[in-house]
Amino acid sequence: MNGAESLVRTLLNGDVNVCFANPGTSEMHFVSALDRVEGVRCILGLFEGVVTGAADGYYRMAGKPAATLLHLGPGLGNGLANLHNAKKARSGMVNIVGEHASYHIQHDAPLTADIEGVARPMSDWVLTSRSAKDVAADGAKAVEAARTAPGQIATLILPADTAWGEAGGPAQVAAPAPRARVDGKAIDAGAQALRSGKPAAILLGGAALRGRALEWAARIAAKCGCELLCEYNNARIERGAGRAVVRQLPFAVDAALAMLKDVRELVLVGAKTPVSFFAYPGKPSVQVPEGCTVTKVAGAEADLEHTLEALADALGARNTAPRINAATHDTALPTGAITLDGLGALFNALLPENAVVIDEAVTSGRAFTGAMMGARPHDWLNIMGGSIGWGPAAATGAAIAAPGRKVVAFEGDGSAQYTLQALWTMAREGLDVTMVVFANRAYKILLGELNNVGAAAPGANALSMLTLDRPDLDWVALAKGYGVEAGRAKTLEELAAQFKRGLAVAGPYLIEVVM
Amino acid sequence: MNGAESLVRTLLNGDVNVCFANPGTSEMHFVSALDRVEGVRCILGLFEGVVTGAADGYYRMAGKPAATLLHLGPGLGNGLANLHNAKKARSGMVNIVGEHASYHIQHDAPLTADIEGVARPMSDWVLTSRSAKDVAADGAKAVEAARTAPGQIATLILPADTAWGEAGGPAQVAAPAPRARVDGKAIDAGAQALRSGKPAAILLGGAALRGRALEWAARIAAKCGCELLCEYNNARIERGAGRAVVRQLPFAVDAALAMLKDVRELVLVGAKTPVSFFAYPGKPSVQVPEGCTVTKVAGAEADLEHTLEALADALGARNTAPRINAATHDTALPTGAITLDGLGALFNALLPENAVVIDEAVTSGRAFTGAMMGARPHDWLNIMGGSIGWGPAAATGAAIAAPGRKVVAFEGDGSAQYTLQALWTMAREGLDVTMVVFANRAYKILLGELNNVGAAAPGANALSMLTLDRPDLDWVALAKGYGVEAGRAKTLEELAAQFKRGLAVAGPYLIEVVM
Repeated sequence: MNGAESLVRTLLNGDVNVCFANPGTSEMHFVSALDRVEGVRCILGLFEGVVTGAADGYYRMAGKPAATLLHLGPGLGNGLANLHNAKKARSGMVNIVGEHASYHIQHDAPLTADIEGVARPMSDWVLTSRSAKDVAADGAKAVEAARTAPGQIATLILPADTAWGEAGGPAQVAAPAPRARVDGKAIDAGAQALRSGKPAAILLGGAALRGRALEWAARIAAKCGCELLCEYNNARIERGAGRAVVRQLPFAVDAALAMLKDVRELVLVGAKTPVSFFAYPGKPSVQVPEGCTVTKVAGAEADLEHTLEALADALGARNTAPRINAATHDTALPTGAITLDGLGALFNALLPENAVVIDEAVTSGRAFTGAMMGARPHDWLNIMGGSIGWGPAAATGAAIAAPGRKVVAFEGDGSAQYTLQALWTMAREGLDVTMVVFANRAYKILLGELNNVGAAAPGANALSMLTLDRPDLDWVALAKGYGVEAGRAKTLEELAAQFKRGLAVAGPYLIEVVM
Repeated sequence: MNGAESLVRTLLNGDVNVCFANPGTSEMHFVSALDRVEGVRCILGLFEGVVTGAADGYYRMAGKPAATLLHLGPGLGNGLANLHNAKKARSGMVNIVGEHASYHIQHDAPLTADIEGVARPMSDWVLTSRSAKDVAADGAKAVEAARTAPGQIATLILPADTAWGEAGGPAQVAAPAPRARVDGKAIDAGAQALRSGKPAAILLGGAALRGRALEWAARIAAKCGCELLCEYNNARIERGAGRAVVRQLPFAVDAALAMLKDVRELVLVGAKTPVSFFAYPGKPSVQVPEGCTVTKVAGAEADLEHTLEALADALGARNTAPRINAATHDTALPTGAITLDGLGALFNALLPENAVVIDEAVTSGRAFTGAMMGARPHDWLNIMGGSIGWGPAAATGAAIAAPGRKVVAFEGDGSAQYTLQALWTMAREGLDVTMVVFANRAYKILLGELNNVGAAAPGANALSMLTLDRPDLDWVALAKGYGVEAGRAKTLEELAAQFKRGLAVAGPYLIEVVM
């Protein structure tokens, strides 16, 4: 058994059985091992940003890491932006990055680069295997790192000779440690803040936004009269009718400050102190109002279900009816011209039960996120690191992880361009993704940001860098180029018909919404 | 004047007047400064790999650096693969990378990352500006670094507050130092090797493959009976009828060893000792045969025209007629099914005079490169770092740098997918690029490499990762999506008609060659 095969078998020992890949020559022995060993589903991406973004989406829905297979430093480089997003989402994944044979590196061949250097900024764990005999144990450590709560980016660099050299055998992978429980003092501090009688809010993050944890939070909110908040972006929230009422902090600094201005006790459960997405001249970085006490009860890595259950018990909320969203989806469909309000009403009515929503509709999406609180129950996944080009890739991985569920990807036209190649993978794998592209023909958010930072009104050079017209992108043709059925909507009626069609077809469908 | 404006004016002082850009919020003051200060041509790329690859192509044809504008760590990450290619090409460029305001970094907002860490592996020079008053001087140093022969990747990181804060004024930029001349001893050593009577070859690289330098080499070859060789990939060669006869070392290790096997004196002028592109079990990394002496006369940074002139004088070759390629382009066009030989003959006949050829036709391209030595005189640019996805971007930059010349980009279907978004920039800027995509529906080179590394025949998993079918990419539809006219060729007659049409239209044209 060579090193590559010992690694594949070790990954399987660690329940890593999906590999998103874009390999090259230095990875050929690993590719060959994937042939010999049964049990790993290999999914090709035409660009590495698709590969790493898919692994992020996969982790968020599967709750376990996938592997990626990348070609030396530059291949890893192409995947870096979505590794950044995944790291900020606290997603776990195991990146296998091929490297030249150890003895070949000194000769500075064209693809030689400092792979560890490329990996480090966007990885939590980095290791280069030193010999074929080490590869299995290194792989086990990589899986263990990736599975460390709440999830970590583990990057294992595999010189070609460690892949083709003779190895011992696969290694065992330790089971993930259970999430640590916070101590009673932290629970007491949180309970005290929420009982203080002052205006209070719980800022929820990570696993606190799902399942039983979220239910406990909804009981606490009902019992204490406090508000449940979440950050602007979240890795995965369970939302919709019958789920907890959670308000999302706005992206715009002034709006976020306004939402928080009366809060005097801010309790953090799985979330960090809220900060502005960007700095703007004269505006604060930290969004906590003066006179507000911040109490951190638990970080994202803790057992948040236990935390919120204990907090509910401390507050006597165990049997309180949770504060949940009423259903609002059984309403008439909006008609006429496409407006942001109309989009919100339309998707609120039509989103199917148990849908997985991928949200990278940067400018347009802000408008309808809040309008869909009473839609049929669904999961909502945000881009976490702010590096656009996450959505098409994440939708691909989410669909692989959640067969039988409809994936709905809301995309800005600027964002979707970065990893458009994901459409081909969706077509090839027959993934049930309905991608809605809001084609406003601009990096419209930046036209606003130019004003927000206090810069002058845009002139010719600024407009040339912030608009996406001349020529307009033809999204229907692009989808066709990747073998994906597509349609265009210029009115809400057309959009409703298109959206229904997208949900009805087996496999991917793209809708260009002309804004 | 703020820091951003002081930087724009400094760039202009250093004759940097083209900026390939994909900005975000943290770059808005720089964008605004580009509006206020006249003289910088700003070109938007829909993906950062387009931006950095364009700057590489620009440098190779303009002989001076462009600026790039990138959005924090992840935006730089997206540009990294083509920075790698540019660094290996020894191209100069000035990357301006936005960063959060200095005081905001500590708060770990979503886009926060170790930007210097991301930059370092693919940059020769990295600096973060510390205050608005430093920006101009830092910018001058960046331009000076980028212009250091033969060219360097300079990355300047610009925290938003150094862009918006009050600065002094622009800085002066020192003129580039003239290239260093090699000393007489090195010339004598080279002359002695070439006079030895043993089978000799000169391996040319960098600027030795162009202009007067190349002419001197052709005289030396005629005088001494030695062979002129170049590496497998080169940043820019002047080729075609009337230019020096230079043989390219093959990619395949065995073929390269066979070409070099009788050489006993190998003289390096601007090139490095030849090494294999990848390591393969049982094959050597260094391709110099046993018993062959290697004499390095000059590195890529030296004054190579002077080196070769001095060498010609030492060998009495000043007035020797150079050994040049005979014209072979006035031949009948090949007809019938598309074959590699047919492609070579077709492009040899039809390539227009003074064309700039971008070569990223990985599998197919190898076949016809050699067949075009007698084509009309042209420049030939190779991908240098081996990270595919360079071609469409480099073609964009080359076309900006060389208006009035036809750019012909030969692309593999695998390669072109990584930076396909460049088509939109070509359409927007009306660039005269004819892109020929050889659609063999596979990473065909890797199917060969799987065999070369000694791995087994491909099974289901390997084939799924090495083929580009199911569905076939529709390149004509993709081009249409980006506003680029396109056609498909299934025979050599159709290809000839399409290629003529591509050369005739003003602006970009794409041809899908069905292999």
